[in-house]
Amino acid sequence: MRLIAFKNDAGQPALGARIGDELVNLTALGLPSTLDELLRQGDSGMNAAKSTLASATKRQPLAGITYLPPLQNPAKAFAIGLNYAEHAAESNFEAPKFPVIFHRYPSSWVAHEQALVRPKISEQFDYEAELVAVIGKGGRYISKEKALEHVAGYSLFNDGSIRDHQFRSTQWMMGKNFDASGSFGPEFVTADELPSGATGLQMQCRLNGVVLQNTNTSQMIFDIATLVAACSEAMALQPGDIIITGTPSGVGLARKPQLWMKAGDVCEVEVEGIGILRNRIVDEI
Amino acid sequence: MRLIAFKNDAGQPALGARIGDELVNLTALGLPSTLDELLRQGDSGMNAAKSTLASATKRQPLAGITYLPPLQNPAKAFAIGLNYAEHAAESNFEAPKFPVIFHRYPSSWVAHEQALVRPKISEQFDYEAELVAVIGKGGRYISKEKALEHVAGYSLFNDGSIRDHQFRSTQWMMGKNFDASGSFGPEFVTADELPSGATGLQMQCRLNGVVLQNTNTSQMIFDIATLVAACSEAMALQPGDIIITGTPSGVGLARKPQLWMKAGDVCEVEVEGIGILRNRIVDEI
Repeated sequence: MRLIAFKNDAGQPALGARIGDELVNLTALGLPSTLDELLRQGDSGMNAAKSTLASATKRQPLAGITYLPPLQNPAKAFAIGLNYAEHAAESNFEAPKFPVIFHRYPSSWVAHEQALVRPKISEQFDYEAELVAVIGKGGRYISKEKALEHVAGYSLFNDGSIRDHQFRSTQWMMGKNFDASGSFGPEFVTADELPSGATGLQMQCRLNGVVLQNTNTSQMIFDIATLVAACSEAMALQPGDIIITGTPSGVGLARKPQLWMKAGDVCEVEVEGIGILRNRIVDEI
Repeated sequence: MRLIAFKNDAGQPALGARIGDELVNLTALGLPSTLDELLRQGDSGMNAAKSTLASATKRQPLAGITYLPPLQNPAKAFAIGLNYAEHAAESNFEAPKFPVIFHRYPSSWVAHEQALVRPKISEQFDYEAELVAVIGKGGRYISKEKALEHVAGYSLFNDGSIRDHQFRSTQWMMGKNFDASGSFGPEFVTADELPSGATGLQMQCRLNGVVLQNTNTSQMIFDIATLVAACSEAMALQPGDIIITGTPSGVGLARKPQLWMKAGDVCEVEVEGIGILRNRIVDEI
């Protein structure tokens, strides 16, 4: 399934399933109004969504819907740094021996087709194309061998970064958390629609149509299973937790001259088989 | 006021105000059941709590209550690193030019008198006494001059740290977020009960009664007003957000020989005028 969180005609959150260029409103058929809630229901929730979708007869056009981020308020949002060797090198860091993990607050991300906001206090607004893994089944000390059983599906993230603030101290979190500086979506794609561990998928970031990042998810230093296992060492994972799995080389920071997103630009993150996450950039007023 | 989140006789969350060794159950008198909710009500909520307390006639003994963390689920929990010069030096870091900020998930902290859990995968369980500032009024780009108007009150935190995991990568978050590795409480003390900015207060950490950290909150490199301003540069602060303001020198990591908390130990964090946060240590089963 390809699930989309959106606003219904009354402006309320709803959950839909996309089929081609049409959407089945699952919430109108009795399913939860958010993916957060559906995932908390475990296998029974996902099975109910599948059977409801299979028997649904009413569809609406996808065009014109207002997207919401696939998850509104995950208990935990792990963001992985330096998870592609060429990106670590271009950033003047050694390739890490253990996953590098920081946090993104939900206030820092917007949905597909919403505006990314460059804050008035910085010019250094950078893009980062990333694959997101969404936890379906929680657990602590999850083994790498069992880890993919805990992943419900995948989505896309633009890990928008305010570089001067990111590197003002040793800890990157603040530069990764400016309000509305990142984006998440457009869809949540269940794991059964993709290769195991979402490996082998082409990934790009394009700014105004120009390809600036171009890699394959098989180039990750720590694959999805390793990241799930690592995160669960410290904390019990919960349904709906997300792991934003790191960006490849080609970021604006490392270019000569450096390249920053500015008002009017359109940034696209694409991963083969998952979709295209598109956002325009506006200046903070 | 000195507010305490606790479990009522039915095991439900309730909010009380302490007077000496007695507690007034404000929730039973119509106030919200959590401080999170009370703070979202703004000045009117806090004024209602004060007037309810002033006219309350029924009290219960404080002894025997089950504490909850003052805040269960803040939207944001900023933790500050290296905010005392001697601690930065003992940790072999330079004193920071900007606040060093990482995140703690609510799953990482327990209440006063609950057990701190040493995870089975590490021996390096360290204590860190810290003052907590709680945001009352939200806002973005809060000036340092106006910042204290946004602070509703203060509490205490033991920023328990799993040191080997903290320093496995450049980002400290995972070592600061093991389940039940930190503690928060016992009370939320409204700002009007303390000196402006909670400055000039003696602070200690004691393990089994032995003083291991001993300083004064006036020794912070970045004071409360500066921290509020800095956090609000990136994100709009919201009522109930917390800033865990950093620990002084004397941590177990920097001792020779190093000193780690172990099962059966009792750790106490005390700040003059705010209280004593006490937790015993247990091993993860």
